[in-house]
Amino acid sequence: MHDQTETLCVLGLDLGGTNIKAAVVTEPGTVLEQLQIETPAGREVSEVVDELVGISVRLMRSHRNITAVGLGAPGLVDEHRRIVRLSPNFPTWSNVPIARMLEEKIHLPVALDNDANCFGLAEYLWGAGKGFRFMLALTVGTGIGGAVILDGRIYRGNSGAAAELGHVSVDLWGPKCRCGNRGCVERYLGEQWFTQAAREQLFELTTSEEDDSISTPAQVSALAADGDERAKKFIAGRGEILGAACTSLIHAFDPEAIIIGGGIAQAGEPFFSGIRRAIRVRAYPVLAARVKIIPAQLGTIAGAMGAAAIGFESAGVYPPGGNRP
Amino acid sequence: MHDQTETLCVLGLDLGGTNIKAAVVTEPGTVLEQLQIETPAGREVSEVVDELVGISVRLMRSHRNITAVGLGAPGLVDEHRRIVRLSPNFPTWSNVPIARMLEEKIHLPVALDNDANCFGLAEYLWGAGKGFRFMLALTVGTGIGGAVILDGRIYRGNSGAAAELGHVSVDLWGPKCRCGNRGCVERYLGEQWFTQAAREQLFELTTSEEDDSISTPAQVSALAADGDERAKKFIAGRGEILGAACTSLIHAFDPEAIIIGGGIAQAGEPFFSGIRRAIRVRAYPVLAARVKIIPAQLGTIAGAMGAAAIGFESAGVYPPGGNRP
Repeated sequence: MHDQTETLCVLGLDLGGTNIKAAVVTEPGTVLEQLQIETPAGREVSEVVDELVGISVRLMRSHRNITAVGLGAPGLVDEHRRIVRLSPNFPTWSNVPIARMLEEKIHLPVALDNDANCFGLAEYLWGAGKGFRFMLALTVGTGIGGAVILDGRIYRGNSGAAAELGHVSVDLWGPKCRCGNRGCVERYLGEQWFTQAAREQLFELTTSEEDDSISTPAQVSALAADGDERAKKFIAGRGEILGAACTSLIHAFDPEAIIIGGGIAQAGEPFFSGIRRAIRVRAYPVLAARVKIIPAQLGTIAGAMGAAAIGFESAGVYPPGGNRP
Repeated sequence: MHDQTETLCVLGLDLGGTNIKAAVVTEPGTVLEQLQIETPAGREVSEVVDELVGISVRLMRSHRNITAVGLGAPGLVDEHRRIVRLSPNFPTWSNVPIARMLEEKIHLPVALDNDANCFGLAEYLWGAGKGFRFMLALTVGTGIGGAVILDGRIYRGNSGAAAELGHVSVDLWGPKCRCGNRGCVERYLGEQWFTQAAREQLFELTTSEEDDSISTPAQVSALAADGDERAKKFIAGRGEILGAACTSLIHAFDPEAIIIGGGIAQAGEPFFSGIRRAIRVRAYPVLAARVKIIPAQLGTIAGAMGAAAIGFESAGVYPPGGNRP
């Protein structure tokens, strides 16, 4: 037994293409325990469900006051938030009723949402978004996920598919995105494309051997941290592209803050300076002066914490934590 | 006396750069009387207020059951909706407390909002948006104004400046917009730029004399209506640019419908086909299949009707008409 108190808590599950993260979270946002396992390589529904059930049962044994489960999944969730319609990370999945499948095995209510909504809700309640009522959240990793909080609530749109902010286009004539659109901001900042552009733009800087060594955004960030001016400039330039997308979002949503997380956000100062510069130059001055661009605070556990928050929300305890409407 | 009944009604005033339109509107959306006067050429605050008071007093005399006034103004309104912060159509205006100025002279409560919000609210309540709960509205004229209706309410954002949808950029490297940003969708479809692009792209089609004759979007539409293939193609191409912007908005807001009005929308079929084609090609298929792209229905009186609707809203009678949440 990890917790001796009778505090109610929710198990948050963050299903990713690489890992499954789990966190047992209390209503004020304390993480009592967290675990991580690898996502089954085959990524088939039944294998993934088995792993989710396994990790849930393990944590439910040591935390008997878990009253609900929240699940964050990548991809498009249906409007009732019971079904994963499709997921770029799980290409064989099509309309998988994952909430029901889990409920039948673990005998607790399961609330499902898009993983980026989970990330955004966690940052809103317990992280960098605390105290704001109108905020956007972007998580920049393999792709770009988005969340929209309006007047203190997650905004899900008409069919549950809102806030696909990575697929806001910054160039209608730009390169084709895997979603079918052109010039999506994800197409410039998603890991693969960030790294590819870094290789192209930093090429002259390195021998071709060294060039081959750039295979992750973290390596570009490391170069910048070592004082490499071209790497800094490249990262700032990617920040400016994200800032251009943020400008369109500011004009549409008029938010108080945009919270930005994910691996590439860890590039830190040159990245955030680029974002802020683009907004300062591009957005309506009265809006640019108000909106705050803030790094996410909760790190890689935000998704699992947010999944737990979705569980609290579905149980009618919403929003948990201090950031009440 | 035009109306003998005791129905309560609101006077809606639509302040434009060229005309001031006024409409006396009942709660179910019947227009009892409408008037139009020219906006004073100097566009100074005191002149404009005098004209607004004049037209109001005139209509209040013949409609004694007017209980409130709504005013739609172009430009940015403050978060309390009492002040016009700035307006591209009235360059000398800076933080003009126009709601109070009118109230002091006409002794009725005055509700202020952005003119595009008025347009969107009127179409939502009484026009093409009837029956939808999540919709966007775009009015394509001198510029592009936007309105966002979420869950049956106008969405105004954190500081009252949301829904500046004309300043969603489709090309971050595109031509500079008067707002300071680059590649705003307004920069391709606003009257001046639409006409300029038409002259450039249709140049080969006409003698230079004939070419000079294209000075309004309506002339391009007339060419298309006469079966001119290049004019049709040009209009469809402009529709596709707007459709690209709509795609980003669909990914962000997941609306049921986008209502499109204003002068250029009267180009009709080639324009709407272009918009729909771009969305079909670009947007997430599940979203593209659902969202409806619909021409506005109320014509040029929508702004004044919507201003009246804002008056009803402020008086607590909201939403007036049949489209209740």
